[in-house]
Amino acid sequence: MSTSKSRGPYAKGAERREQIVQTATDVFATEGFEGTALKRVAELVGVREATLFHYFRGKQELLTAVLAERDRRGMDTVGSDHVALPGLAAVAERNSREPGLTTLYTVASATANDPGHDSHAYFRQRYAWLVQELGADITARQAAGEVRTDLPADALARLVIASFDGLQLQWLYDKDLDVAEGLRGLIDVILAPPGKATP
Amino acid sequence: MSTSKSRGPYAKGAERREQIVQTATDVFATEGFEGTALKRVAELVGVREATLFHYFRGKQELLTAVLAERDRRGMDTVGSDHVALPGLAAVAERNSREPGLTTLYTVASATANDPGHDSHAYFRQRYAWLVQELGADITARQAAGEVRTDLPADALARLVIASFDGLQLQWLYDKDLDVAEGLRGLIDVILAPPGKATP
Repeated sequence: MSTSKSRGPYAKGAERREQIVQTATDVFATEGFEGTALKRVAELVGVREATLFHYFRGKQELLTAVLAERDRRGMDTVGSDHVALPGLAAVAERNSREPGLTTLYTVASATANDPGHDSHAYFRQRYAWLVQELGADITARQAAGEVRTDLPADALARLVIASFDGLQLQWLYDKDLDVAEGLRGLIDVILAPPGKATP
Repeated sequence: MSTSKSRGPYAKGAERREQIVQTATDVFATEGFEGTALKRVAELVGVREATLFHYFRGKQELLTAVLAERDRRGMDTVGSDHVALPGLAAVAERNSREPGLTTLYTVASATANDPGHDSHAYFRQRYAWLVQELGADITARQAAGEVRTDLPADALARLVIASFDGLQLQWLYDKDLDVAEGLRGLIDVILAPPGKATP
């Protein structure tokens, strides 16, 4: 957010957009995608509903911005610009405290498989980015002797991302399931090189 | 399906129901949930649309029956009534040849998180059943020295199920991804006890 006192129209617009995304994130988290009324988001921001359409073409585009904001908050949790194995359990813990956003993400990740869905490109790029980031982290840890080397780093990265998504999916049907604990088992025990596991 | 020549009304009803499920499975596989018209299913079965409602309350209940039929076909692939580690890659290969049903399953598994969704109980029971079946298989393989023992069987079962779902989700955005190969890496290499892996 701009801290300049002489903000131009661009900075004001960016600030207003940010305000809409923050508010929408909270409303989507509580009401879900189907339940969220853009009118309600506009009311809470203090603008007319038509103003929202200066910033977002519609509800689906706003959802994509909310999903990206959720990612940003996740990165804040681990205090890094990079995805790395040790931070994933903390993100999972955060997600379990944000059941609305976690459900929103899980449903969108499946329904956006349709290339006509506004969030399709977001998810396609997100998975490619996650595999690249986590693959680089795992490659470094393999070289340092911290991660098993009998499978390529990108295959391990895909399995970790898949386990995260898949455990969260199971959690939708059994809220007692501890996703973070499942990930810790995978990362600390299973991915450790033989003899280095700490069960 | 009944082979009796003097079929009673119950057997006839069961046969008709089966015919509807088989046809609906093919139509849902091609057209998806949103795209499937019950009228089209009825036409292909050769009944009036109203007849479908003698067997299913609506499209969502028919979807649940189609998902169960997909499971049955998956069990046919491995030729067993029980879920076991060695058969999973073959099921994944089958799924990749059935992109329509696999997409249908993945989307439904997320959207049915709402307890009001007709398939909610189906998925809740399916995950509980899968963890139990695969957990029992893994317990036996741990005792036989075929699977690592540094994590409990049910934790490993949940991770395998999560990886299967999660890799399939990634595959929705990158159809070059080989889900079966990813599962083989997990099962044959990562779950093997240290020193027993066959990379």
